[in-house]
Amino acid sequence: MTTTARSATDVSSRYRRAADYAAAAMIYLKDNVLLREPLRREHLKPRLLGHWGTCPGITFLYAGLNGLVRRTGRRTLLVTGPGHGAPAVHANLWLESTHAELDPALGRDGNGLAELVRRFSWPGGFPSHLSPEVPGVIHEGGELGYALATAFGAALDNPDLTVACLVGDGEAETGPTAGSWHASKFLDPRTDGAVLPVLHVNGYKISSPTIYGCMSDEELTAYFSGAGWSPYVLDVTTTDDPDALLAETLDLAHAEIAAVRERWTPGERAVWPMIVLRSPKGWGVPAEDTEGQPLEGTFHAHQVPLGGVHDDDAELALLERWLRSYRPDELFDDDGRPHDDLLADLPPEHLRLGRVPEANGGQLRRDLPLPDVARFAVDVPAPGAGSASPTGTTGTWLAELMSATEDQRDFRVLCPDELASNKLDALLEATDRAFTWPVPGYAEHLAPGGRVMEVLSEHLCQGWLQGYLLTGRHALFPCYEAFASIVDSMVNQYAKFLKIAGEVPWRASVASANYLLTSEGWRQEHNGYSHQGPGFLNNLLTKKASVARVYLPPDANTLLVTLRHCLTSTDRINLVIAGKNTGSQWLDLDTAERHCAAGAGVWEWAGNGTGDPHVVLACAGGIPTVEVLAAASILRERAPDLVVRVVNVVDLLSLAPDTRHPHGMSEADFTACYGQRTPVVFGFHGYPSAVHEVLHGRPDTQRFHVHGYQEEGTTTTPYDLLVSNGMSRHDLAADTLRRSGRGDQLADELLAERDELRAAAHRDGVDPAEITDWRWGA
Amino acid sequence: MTTTARSATDVSSRYRRAADYAAAAMIYLKDNVLLREPLRREHLKPRLLGHWGTCPGITFLYAGLNGLVRRTGRRTLLVTGPGHGAPAVHANLWLESTHAELDPALGRDGNGLAELVRRFSWPGGFPSHLSPEVPGVIHEGGELGYALATAFGAALDNPDLTVACLVGDGEAETGPTAGSWHASKFLDPRTDGAVLPVLHVNGYKISSPTIYGCMSDEELTAYFSGAGWSPYVLDVTTTDDPDALLAETLDLAHAEIAAVRERWTPGERAVWPMIVLRSPKGWGVPAEDTEGQPLEGTFHAHQVPLGGVHDDDAELALLERWLRSYRPDELFDDDGRPHDDLLADLPPEHLRLGRVPEANGGQLRRDLPLPDVARFAVDVPAPGAGSASPTGTTGTWLAELMSATEDQRDFRVLCPDELASNKLDALLEATDRAFTWPVPGYAEHLAPGGRVMEVLSEHLCQGWLQGYLLTGRHALFPCYEAFASIVDSMVNQYAKFLKIAGEVPWRASVASANYLLTSEGWRQEHNGYSHQGPGFLNNLLTKKASVARVYLPPDANTLLVTLRHCLTSTDRINLVIAGKNTGSQWLDLDTAERHCAAGAGVWEWAGNGTGDPHVVLACAGGIPTVEVLAAASILRERAPDLVVRVVNVVDLLSLAPDTRHPHGMSEADFTACYGQRTPVVFGFHGYPSAVHEVLHGRPDTQRFHVHGYQEEGTTTTPYDLLVSNGMSRHDLAADTLRRSGRGDQLADELLAERDELRAAAHRDGVDPAEITDWRWGA
Repeated sequence: MTTTARSATDVSSRYRRAADYAAAAMIYLKDNVLLREPLRREHLKPRLLGHWGTCPGITFLYAGLNGLVRRTGRRTLLVTGPGHGAPAVHANLWLESTHAELDPALGRDGNGLAELVRRFSWPGGFPSHLSPEVPGVIHEGGELGYALATAFGAALDNPDLTVACLVGDGEAETGPTAGSWHASKFLDPRTDGAVLPVLHVNGYKISSPTIYGCMSDEELTAYFSGAGWSPYVLDVTTTDDPDALLAETLDLAHAEIAAVRERWTPGERAVWPMIVLRSPKGWGVPAEDTEGQPLEGTFHAHQVPLGGVHDDDAELALLERWLRSYRPDELFDDDGRPHDDLLADLPPEHLRLGRVPEANGGQLRRDLPLPDVARFAVDVPAPGAGSASPTGTTGTWLAELMSATEDQRDFRVLCPDELASNKLDALLEATDRAFTWPVPGYAEHLAPGGRVMEVLSEHLCQGWLQGYLLTGRHALFPCYEAFASIVDSMVNQYAKFLKIAGEVPWRASVASANYLLTSEGWRQEHNGYSHQGPGFLNNLLTKKASVARVYLPPDANTLLVTLRHCLTSTDRINLVIAGKNTGSQWLDLDTAERHCAAGAGVWEWAGNGTGDPHVVLACAGGIPTVEVLAAASILRERAPDLVVRVVNVVDLLSLAPDTRHPHGMSEADFTACYGQRTPVVFGFHGYPSAVHEVLHGRPDTQRFHVHGYQEEGTTTTPYDLLVSNGMSRHDLAADTLRRSGRGDQLADELLAERDELRAAAHRDGVDPAEITDWRWGA
Repeated sequence: MTTTARSATDVSSRYRRAADYAAAAMIYLKDNVLLREPLRREHLKPRLLGHWGTCPGITFLYAGLNGLVRRTGRRTLLVTGPGHGAPAVHANLWLESTHAELDPALGRDGNGLAELVRRFSWPGGFPSHLSPEVPGVIHEGGELGYALATAFGAALDNPDLTVACLVGDGEAETGPTAGSWHASKFLDPRTDGAVLPVLHVNGYKISSPTIYGCMSDEELTAYFSGAGWSPYVLDVTTTDDPDALLAETLDLAHAEIAAVRERWTPGERAVWPMIVLRSPKGWGVPAEDTEGQPLEGTFHAHQVPLGGVHDDDAELALLERWLRSYRPDELFDDDGRPHDDLLADLPPEHLRLGRVPEANGGQLRRDLPLPDVARFAVDVPAPGAGSASPTGTTGTWLAELMSATEDQRDFRVLCPDELASNKLDALLEATDRAFTWPVPGYAEHLAPGGRVMEVLSEHLCQGWLQGYLLTGRHALFPCYEAFASIVDSMVNQYAKFLKIAGEVPWRASVASANYLLTSEGWRQEHNGYSHQGPGFLNNLLTKKASVARVYLPPDANTLLVTLRHCLTSTDRINLVIAGKNTGSQWLDLDTAERHCAAGAGVWEWAGNGTGDPHVVLACAGGIPTVEVLAAASILRERAPDLVVRVVNVVDLLSLAPDTRHPHGMSEADFTACYGQRTPVVFGFHGYPSAVHEVLHGRPDTQRFHVHGYQEEGTTTTPYDLLVSNGMSRHDLAADTLRRSGRGDQLADELLAERDELRAAAHRDGVDPAEITDWRWGA
């Protein structure tokens, strides 16, 4: 090392002492935060919240990255996996004065530090974990596993960005993290940024050693080399100048990244660097507690060490000794300002980690150049007259959008290996599937730089999505309906992120997370029971009304209009469920526009009779719409005196009371659709319970008789699957007759016909032509 | 190879031709299944369902394992990840006559084959994917990712078993699979069986190359070596006798497994063998289709190749040529029986892969020796008088159960790194956390052979759980409440497995999957918003009534009684949610027994006044119970004329109509609790929507005013968190007053007091003593 480098690492070491001190202070203190007087019990917070164990490692990396950015000028975003290490991040944000910039009360002086320390883990203050309130953060980290995938999402189409990602060795045990190491094979060195993962091996989780902590350097090197990385293993305990070692390693990694970006050509492996950082858990905490139990370097340092300080004088004394071991008096001036020298390695202000514009990506977002849907709409001269695949139609529109964003590269489609299967393959005429690693065999539409991302990992797709959206871009996540539940918990966490982000004044709006679920259960009769599961919708209904939207467009034009809306909306999670199979179309584009705007409406042409209906036949979802229309058609012919109104629901939340959800229909509109006391037979795409819970609060909900998926399934014919769940046209028509109180005999006849049709399907292996050839009005 | 081995591989080759032929026949034919006459269109199934691509590889391994088992006599269970390769498994089950054993209609002759071929993917027949109807199967495989973890679960405490696990290279891209490779570090060679993973690299998913297919042999070797395996890479295209190569490799792997089992001693790495098997996708299908598009060795062979056979004569001819390339006439006699010679490598009947007893584990299951709960019950002389941690109390009982099962080793606790945190650490006095890999540093209660499994992967825990239960053992899965949603989709699939298994006559009942969710959101006020999520419950409510149960025991004794019930039940998914924090106790053991048996009941002692109540105050869940009791106490004192009845719900599904759920209370019992028109103010543990949907079908549900979690959260005090969600005692009391129509002014006063208490919490950083010191009756 040169003298310059050496003195730089002195800076790092002093900087780290200040940050570690501030982080520890956040956990324990509410007063006397600079220890200008002896530590007394009343200086302690009444509840000690926070996790010390990972903090020193976070700061170690943060300080190292500061130096790297200062030396190289390369814009760097830090994604911190161990979100419970928030005190460290806060400490660094205070030292780099990002906190002060956003909130003058958190100025880089003693008052600001006192305020920050007090606010941490205090009601009304900063949460104990990283959260959208924290500048520079695009990942909450409370539920471990998704940092690395998120980092890759941030790096896509950001060639001037390095995304450093700290992955804890606890987090590394999760499946989603383990699967994310392969994501480097999708990065195009020409058009994407770099991801620099730092696996932080401090050896312990809450109460046990970690798996990665029990792997040797050789094993770690083999594992990550095999996954396609160039690993550096760095152990802070092997040197007396860990900052220098880190600086050197980061410089090497940076040079390697630059080399890949400059020299890589298609057909080669793009082998990027990653770092395995070994440091003692809780690095810097006393080696033992007052009773001789080991602390530093063990899981006992994971959360709050010395938790007995409120009651135990010896522990209090040891805490003071520990805090004073950072020698705060040497670090802060009389006003509590950190001495200039220890800030010498900070990057210029605009490059500080907390201020990277991509971390508040909404401010970089532009509106997408959405093609006019009119050119893609299906011609529907009369209801039932057209024929199209909803997703296929939308695919052509999306393909044009993909082309229109070729220059700016701010739109991607992420799909767990199912794009073609979901009939969105028109997109592949506009771009390729991204894959950078050389392919030894045959492939189609696969190339570095493609903007369709296919991988057989819903987790990775979801992580990419989050990272991509939060850094200011747009995306669509098409998925087999049943397998979207794989990311239930990631969506839970992302909904939380959006909810809180919406309350943070300086966070700019980001593009919505858009899910297009297709290959829906009703048409997975061929793949069987495992592929029949509409529960992702139910999970989304547990989210805040400000965040969640659920759309069930029944045909191609309504899907086009719905997706156009979703791709212009912000800060939401939009769930769109639509079919891929070619079938009858119901609404021309103008009607579709009006219908989608209303959220639900009466389809006059489908009903029967005039005046108050005996029964309302409602439907939501493509297949239920077909069945309800077929039921209406049966009733029109066989019970011509029955007055039936048909209502179609595109926006599921239109059913909710408008006091509970902003999309809830007014009571007047609701009554115009469903009457006030009229029985409603409802053909629903998913579990009936979803309708029941959304309806809660509407008057007289007992009159809603919802047919839907009842978890009956196997490999069979579409009609047989509907019958198994009481959702066939015959079931719906029979129920309508019964609810009207005027058609029990006909209902029995219809059910007998149903059983015959079903028997024919079992005999022939296909549904009878009566079912498959049915067309509205034919 | 010796001559004997060579002739054995001739057998394998002929055997495979028969199996591959039968598998292809299942996909295409409904008649003329042995091609005794020229193939005509009317022999084809009207719908061609199934996935050819993975079938030849499955059979290749199946045949190889047959030989290995025959040679070694080692009991071997096969877990097949690519469940869409069901035709191959069926073909092998038919050849080994397991199908015939369970169903004479599927005899090992031409009639049996015709029946099997017709049944496959036919309404009322076998599904297109593996399912519980298929003998030898403990894993459905339709949702990819969980085969490997399931295999490890099956191997635990089964020292005489080898669990071979075929992992597709598509499936390998999933996070859960990627994380599962480390599970070998938990196997104790002395007390557990072996897992022999075979990564099947055929290079393609639905429409793209796989990641693992693009890794070199060196990379694969490094990756799996680094993960702690001894990998063999086997490429069928590099030899003219692939069966011999596989037999040799399996023999080597078997010998390596035997060596680990014999020679391993604690403190050493237990490095087990695994196999990377490279074979062309769709191996054996024509190289190209009729238009020159490549088939074999590409993704075009993934599902049904030659899908145009119904309409295209050339395709039909090519299909016939392909099917005849297996020369069925050489393989089957005039009656369609496979020639004896090709069956020569089958193991003895009891060792055939489809008949391994562990694959129908219910028949091996014993009732657990459950300790008498009376010795562990908390003394509760009067409601509110006791003080205990519910999970802590249960932990001592579980510890005794752990000791009582030490000899049979048929009970495990699987927990994502949170056992101590969840106050179940008494278990660690009875056993250790399992971990076999040497630990370089400090650890506590960690040892090979321990029967607590901790890993920071809910996916791995869930996979272990499924494999362990389905092979006839018992288990408990304690988890932070919010993070149980990580396995939503796995639970979805497992619920499907249980539902179908319950309809298969030869499947014996297995122990229920028992979830103990604790560290519940209401007491994750310190970890913040990410840790606050009760949605796992909502997901479970979408399951069949025959499968799902939800319990919310409010204190230690009710938890004991509930868990005892769950651990005796079979074929269910039991969700138990209970607190870990020490607090007031409500019911002595006898009362707890009666209360749990009823599912819900009136707590007379907690109500006020006599006669018909003005309002029912109901509660479900530990924290809501405290708040409701505190509300009742406030009302008793401040509105003594208000007649209030308090109802506590342990079994959430007691709220459902008994027509919809077997645990639903009779209408009479329901009315006895909640009246018929009485307003009910309900303090609920989770999202209010869960109660709304369960109540659907009960009369006049609009009178139920459910308070619960509204997705408001952060790091704060417990009381502040309750207030944010409208769930505090003051909110509940105020709502009760309003619903009674007789206390608006007092309600306003209570809400003002609430706001003052909340302000105090914000000021002091802790809840006021008025809240924290509150005791019933004090």
